[in-house]
Amino acid sequence: MIDLPRTVEFDGRKVIMVDQRRLPEELTFFECESIECVSFAIRNMVVRGAPAIAAAAAFGLALHSTRIGVSDPEGFAREMRRAAELLGSTRPTAYNMFWALERMMRAIEGAGSVEEMRERILREAREIAEEDVRANMAIGEHGRGLIRDGCRIMTICNAGSLATVWLGTATAPLYLARSEGVRFEVYVLETRPLLQGARITAFELRRAGIPVKLIVDGAAGYVISELGVDLIITGADRVLSDGTVFNKIGTYTLSVLAKEHGVPFYVAAPTSTIDARSSREDVRIEMRDPEEVLVVNGRRIAPEGVEVLNPAFDVTPPGNLTGIITERGIVRRPFDEGIRRILSVPR
Amino acid sequence: MIDLPRTVEFDGRKVIMVDQRRLPEELTFFECESIECVSFAIRNMVVRGAPAIAAAAAFGLALHSTRIGVSDPEGFAREMRRAAELLGSTRPTAYNMFWALERMMRAIEGAGSVEEMRERILREAREIAEEDVRANMAIGEHGRGLIRDGCRIMTICNAGSLATVWLGTATAPLYLARSEGVRFEVYVLETRPLLQGARITAFELRRAGIPVKLIVDGAAGYVISELGVDLIITGADRVLSDGTVFNKIGTYTLSVLAKEHGVPFYVAAPTSTIDARSSREDVRIEMRDPEEVLVVNGRRIAPEGVEVLNPAFDVTPPGNLTGIITERGIVRRPFDEGIRRILSVPR
Repeated sequence: MIDLPRTVEFDGRKVIMVDQRRLPEELTFFECESIECVSFAIRNMVVRGAPAIAAAAAFGLALHSTRIGVSDPEGFAREMRRAAELLGSTRPTAYNMFWALERMMRAIEGAGSVEEMRERILREAREIAEEDVRANMAIGEHGRGLIRDGCRIMTICNAGSLATVWLGTATAPLYLARSEGVRFEVYVLETRPLLQGARITAFELRRAGIPVKLIVDGAAGYVISELGVDLIITGADRVLSDGTVFNKIGTYTLSVLAKEHGVPFYVAAPTSTIDARSSREDVRIEMRDPEEVLVVNGRRIAPEGVEVLNPAFDVTPPGNLTGIITERGIVRRPFDEGIRRILSVPR
Repeated sequence: MIDLPRTVEFDGRKVIMVDQRRLPEELTFFECESIECVSFAIRNMVVRGAPAIAAAAAFGLALHSTRIGVSDPEGFAREMRRAAELLGSTRPTAYNMFWALERMMRAIEGAGSVEEMRERILREAREIAEEDVRANMAIGEHGRGLIRDGCRIMTICNAGSLATVWLGTATAPLYLARSEGVRFEVYVLETRPLLQGARITAFELRRAGIPVKLIVDGAAGYVISELGVDLIITGADRVLSDGTVFNKIGTYTLSVLAKEHGVPFYVAAPTSTIDARSSREDVRIEMRDPEEVLVVNGRRIAPEGVEVLNPAFDVTPPGNLTGIITERGIVRRPFDEGIRRILSVPR
């Protein structure tokens, strides 16, 4: 159905990731044999997408656990905490990574030996990755009903297979609907500055045989108002307990356009994206390097001395959402209640 | 005050234009000695911006009039009409060019000789260019009061000096306010696909000593909702008699964000931009080459076979506007009445 490799894997010695900086020109892999290398890969967006980052971080810890030469459990746990902190410092907004790192650290609590810690760490990392694929499959099942024959869907950035371990969040309903023969087309926003929509989403949707119409980010208003869009579906890097969504820069704008035109606006995200402890003020929006905006394919696009503001994410208030598609069902208004309910459902 | 050359000039033998494709890397000039060359320059955006295109077209006709070896007035007028049609075929949405071409053709009506026709054509072209500079100065005078010390202004594309013969439309109030010592900063949307905001607006505002913060188009919602913007001001390629505005792709989205957040949204345009004869359905939105989106600095950004929709303009309904700043004053609601009034004011 979808001819794409796993985005993140661990072979026991190396963390292996699709090198997303090289797409769509070539599908190559980036291999890490150290925690520092995994940190580099996350920070520099070799791997991106909240669930994929979480898996990469979990496998990074698993890799590191095989490399630590410490034999007392306390020293080992200390070293693992240090490694988790290093990974956690790479990107501040995506929640799933913090969720995964915490879960990894919890897994070694109460273990009697370093040997047992290593086993538990490896098992937990593999489980995080497998759960992600299962969650995406469930997101697809819950969301497929939103997609009707002939409909026009819009999406931003990449919340696709390559943003997860496999299948994707926003794309899972699309892939399942497509595999059942439903025909639809997808307007993909190119998503400046790093063009993940043009490079990655267009790449994987095309590979799955789904018709793609690529547009610049500024054309979303034109397409929605003049041509008509039936459904907008995006991913999320963090969802608060009231339904506030942090996602790729441009998502908020899309949600305002959706509201203006009465277009259903869905966010697809596994419950591991839900940060039930923070409020809006606690979340830091990552400001990335101005060079990402200023230098395109090796050439400057603006004069020297011009200041750049490069926020990687924006904030969509719950009032702009139609629903949040999780692996445990679609949450609708009131979101705070729905999210509380869905988080209390046992896994 | 603003250290920029005239964007379009005619020295009697050549139409000379700032080559805007080369900005901001170098400020070079593109010289045309034929009507075909001027058509190429307009179509390929050597020159862009509705008022600058109008002046280039007018000077193109003036140039052509010196080259026609026809001595009978009727044959001469026929050849001029053919040339005007060639120029008119270059870009369909910007109105000022059609306004200028019509005015040029009207100027030769009733002339007794080819000699007189040539004289009138040259005079009319120079007058169109000079009127543009005077109109921009007046737009600046009418709009300067909107700009207060410490305010944050947002603009898209380039409605600056380089989009006109000189001084600009949306930028004229900024330049006048700046010359009086008012301090403010401008968020410039980079404006994909051709990045006129990053390349051209950032270039000319910086040259005028105005602080610029460059953002990707998708970040407009973040800046307006999280940081706050006091004023949005854009140009227009065509304004209908009810106040409907055709402008660079992305303008409509900005107007929706402005409405959502109560930010004053002004369009600055000379009355030559007002098309009082057409309705929404008559205006064709120019769809430009997919390559403009797909190839950035010589390298493809999306996989082969991906379809691209590249509308150059979008449509902003009058309900989203706070006002239209013209050389004859600021038009406010109801726009149809205000526009009728302003068009009936004698020049």
